[in-house]
Amino acid sequence: MKSIIIASTSTLHGGKYLEYLLPILKEHFKNCKTILFIPYARPSGISHEEYTQKAAEAFASINIEVKGIHEFEDPQVAVKEAEGIFTGGGNTFLLVSQLYKNNIMQLVAETVKNGTPYLGSSAGSNICGLSMQTTNDMPIIYPPSFQTLGLIPFNLNPHYLDADLQSKHMGETRETRIKEFHAFNSIPVLGLREGSWLEVKGEKITLKGDLKARLFKKNETPQELESESDLSYLK
Amino acid sequence: MKSIIIASTSTLHGGKYLEYLLPILKEHFKNCKTILFIPYARPSGISHEEYTQKAAEAFASINIEVKGIHEFEDPQVAVKEAEGIFTGGGNTFLLVSQLYKNNIMQLVAETVKNGTPYLGSSAGSNICGLSMQTTNDMPIIYPPSFQTLGLIPFNLNPHYLDADLQSKHMGETRETRIKEFHAFNSIPVLGLREGSWLEVKGEKITLKGDLKARLFKKNETPQELESESDLSYLK
Repeated sequence: MKSIIIASTSTLHGGKYLEYLLPILKEHFKNCKTILFIPYARPSGISHEEYTQKAAEAFASINIEVKGIHEFEDPQVAVKEAEGIFTGGGNTFLLVSQLYKNNIMQLVAETVKNGTPYLGSSAGSNICGLSMQTTNDMPIIYPPSFQTLGLIPFNLNPHYLDADLQSKHMGETRETRIKEFHAFNSIPVLGLREGSWLEVKGEKITLKGDLKARLFKKNETPQELESESDLSYLK
Repeated sequence: MKSIIIASTSTLHGGKYLEYLLPILKEHFKNCKTILFIPYARPSGISHEEYTQKAAEAFASINIEVKGIHEFEDPQVAVKEAEGIFTGGGNTFLLVSQLYKNNIMQLVAETVKNGTPYLGSSAGSNICGLSMQTTNDMPIIYPPSFQTLGLIPFNLNPHYLDADLQSKHMGETRETRIKEFHAFNSIPVLGLREGSWLEVKGEKITLKGDLKARLFKKNETPQELESESDLSYLK
């Protein structure tokens, strides 16, 4: 049975890395002594080692050890043997490129579908959707495909940001960008605000956290969804 | 001799489409009765027809006719015969996909290098760089390559936005995203604020408009450049 936490962000303003999620993660990874960390997204270009260290420090407080996938000779073996998997945020283009390069995109999807508990934050959440085509990230590297894990039957926009009505900036708002996506794609997109996450248990998908989420469907007015909404029907 | 205007944005807050640039464009396209408009980037998903109409209305005020490239049977012929070319903003992934699909990416580059005056705004400016890898846009479609026109020997980030120090949002700032680009690429990136443009005359590249621009180079502290700066040395 799938058991997945898909978080908009790793860190809330003023909080420490993963801090707001730790009580949830303690329960989520309760059967894990060690989890596998996928640091491929490298936020701000930090190294795999530094990034894994950061994740390890957060998980140490709930007595879970963290091993970076780069520490294994064979990343496929690392995924197959993992008790739990956490994919951190950063650049989604880089993350997806590395997952394909190391030939583990499909393997991670299968492994998580078969029940290995998974945590994603930001870019690590983006890849839980059908494609990475609603990421906010810069295309710093050309991935072989935009297709991702497909652990949920729709797409995500993490760090969803409402338009600032006071702004004089003329660049596209997040909502406009998603509208452009829907000119060519019919997949629903969930705008997940910082502090929200999705809980996936088997086929049940629930919106968690204190905030509402914004749902975009092709040719429909966007909808605000309350926390605890059941999203299992979405596709 | 190259003659190019590369604008951060088509529209300033409170202004009309292209309004702030019209005196410049009147001079820039002074030998053109008609210009070719490339509406492929389709902002908010509007149609080629609607978008061309919008451009035509702006250019009517300086007595220049606008024809959309979609009105031609053969887009290659349209480019070859153009007196001037304007590529509008919208989604850069879509624009680049369409330029490749219609087999005119290289042709537009050659045509403009041979002296046909060019105007780009936003996505239409992004493609003037070596690659589209510093766009802000969503990857709504998978292009066959990220390589673009290479009319200037560096990359652009149009609609450049300074970090909002009051913000509690934890998504990456524009500067962080460009830093991630520089973890894997050594091409300089010019952050062009709304209201700035580059003027390219032959090999001379000059920053125009009232604002400073922000220059990012790999492993260097970003630099603020004054208006009228000569950027010809950059590469």
